[in-house]
Amino acid sequence: MATMNRQLVLRQRPKDLLAPGDLEVVETPVPELKDSQALARVKYLSIDPTMRVWMAVDSYLPAVGFGEVMRAIGFAEIEESKSTDFKKGDKVVGLTGLQDYAVVTPGDKRGFHKVPNIPFLSDTAFLGVLGGTGMTAFFGMEIAAPKKGETLVVSAAAGATGSVAGQIGKIQGCRVVGIAGSDDKCKWLTEELGFDAAVNYKHADWKQKLATATPQGIDIDYENVGGEIMHEVLSRMNLFGRVVLCGLISGYTKGDPGMASLSTVLVKRLRVQGFIVLDFASRFMEAATRLGQWKMFGKIKDRETIVEGLEKAPEAINMLFTGGNTGKLMVKV
Amino acid sequence: MATMNRQLVLRQRPKDLLAPGDLEVVETPVPELKDSQALARVKYLSIDPTMRVWMAVDSYLPAVGFGEVMRAIGFAEIEESKSTDFKKGDKVVGLTGLQDYAVVTPGDKRGFHKVPNIPFLSDTAFLGVLGGTGMTAFFGMEIAAPKKGETLVVSAAAGATGSVAGQIGKIQGCRVVGIAGSDDKCKWLTEELGFDAAVNYKHADWKQKLATATPQGIDIDYENVGGEIMHEVLSRMNLFGRVVLCGLISGYTKGDPGMASLSTVLVKRLRVQGFIVLDFASRFMEAATRLGQWKMFGKIKDRETIVEGLEKAPEAINMLFTGGNTGKLMVKV
Repeated sequence: MATMNRQLVLRQRPKDLLAPGDLEVVETPVPELKDSQALARVKYLSIDPTMRVWMAVDSYLPAVGFGEVMRAIGFAEIEESKSTDFKKGDKVVGLTGLQDYAVVTPGDKRGFHKVPNIPFLSDTAFLGVLGGTGMTAFFGMEIAAPKKGETLVVSAAAGATGSVAGQIGKIQGCRVVGIAGSDDKCKWLTEELGFDAAVNYKHADWKQKLATATPQGIDIDYENVGGEIMHEVLSRMNLFGRVVLCGLISGYTKGDPGMASLSTVLVKRLRVQGFIVLDFASRFMEAATRLGQWKMFGKIKDRETIVEGLEKAPEAINMLFTGGNTGKLMVKV
Repeated sequence: MATMNRQLVLRQRPKDLLAPGDLEVVETPVPELKDSQALARVKYLSIDPTMRVWMAVDSYLPAVGFGEVMRAIGFAEIEESKSTDFKKGDKVVGLTGLQDYAVVTPGDKRGFHKVPNIPFLSDTAFLGVLGGTGMTAFFGMEIAAPKKGETLVVSAAAGATGSVAGQIGKIQGCRVVGIAGSDDKCKWLTEELGFDAAVNYKHADWKQKLATATPQGIDIDYENVGGEIMHEVLSRMNLFGRVVLCGLISGYTKGDPGMASLSTVLVKRLRVQGFIVLDFASRFMEAATRLGQWKMFGKIKDRETIVEGLEKAPEAINMLFTGGNTGKLMVKV
């Protein structure tokens, strides 16, 4: 067992993309366990757009403080335990932070929980389809309340959340159109995930293509992006449409609050609902069960983009904003 | 009976407030009735912010066309009838337009319906508390889904819709705070209508006063105004708050679409719901019955601002945007 723990600590708040020096690697001794604590060796780290928000401002969680280990969800194995809840070898998920070792203390707010060994489910699925991003898609689509035959548009559709949200839309009988940033991603959405259409917003004629792909207008906007993409989607919304406000990634590196026209919301009688997956914590088991079934029966497919090495985490975070990942982005520690 | 019909027809789309020449008075002969038509003599015209929208752009209804009689809701009496539905002396409400006489044709889209003679209810109540603005408040507050003890903030609170919405909030057990544009209006809200507090947004320290008046934050924003007022209200919203998007009057004379920060909506998990009272047409009787009871039992009080003379209608419309009215604004023809 290692004696030192590499940690990425926050030194400065990023201005745009993460720059060298925003997060610094420090080494500290692996902590001694106190009574009822356990030591978890981090294997995989979930890399999510919300981390960029956590680095910058207070939001639904307080901003990470200077000198603190950067907040992150991780998959880990218990390596040593003085806890009655966790024994050596247990697999756990929780807010490990960007580091090699996390100390699990009963009752803290980092939400450590054991995950089961299930045939056909990889460990990384507990960060993806059955993790925070899959849960986000599950509860977001519940808020969307889709009806069979409605048209659902998902932005950042090839991301970890968008790709699951779109597939849930297909399970529920919607026409599903994804918006993504490369032809390869669009091809993945339509050819592998079963989206009815996908539009690459980097093509000059993407607005026309979106119109062609949504001949009956749009009933549900599963919104991950904000900005110009959302503006265009809103312009095609049908009366009584629903906007599930899941993320506004286009503004995260620019401090852009994602302004939208309320005239459109009013005149079209839209319902715009913001949500954060943590609000549904009491129902995570229900969602994981359903998502796990869908995954095992091939109703939900996923793809992973895995970056090797803890020290690469800052570059991995930036990939989210430059379109570098398809599906779930993780760091293998 | 008069032989000529004065009509205010649209000549140009207003740029800011209505200017001379936007609406022109023309006189045409009172139409001859065809079979099954009735002739209604307009007594009162409802003057509403939405009329400024109808003059300018297509919205939930098409914009009024050049040369057409300006659209307006009116209270009228049947003066002559070839209809089996209406007889001479019947009192009706419908889209009469800004004119002396309207022809009522069965099955047209102007929604003419008879109103009953009810003791204690004046004719004008059918344009106010029991009319479009009262209905708007009723269904908007249904969307708000208030819980006892929650804090409701109403903007344009001394207007016809806001004043009723706030009183419904009181009936339902909310702490109700109004925002209005004069000390007299604020006094009316607190001393006569029973609002818990009222804030005059024309005072330099109004934001501080709003904060003082909402010590537990804001759970419901009944939004009639948009712009800076809405921005301030949103900044004080509690988690899981509801924004009932009823109007955005601050932008109507400026072509301002009422932009709002979706970051706030997302982080606070707000529900923003646009609505138009016409969507609830099938439930107008239910609402009128309830509102009528509340009014008769003194649970809802109202005030009327009545401008005399059809030709004064353009000035009356402008009063809505300059704060000239308290309660329901009408033109007496």
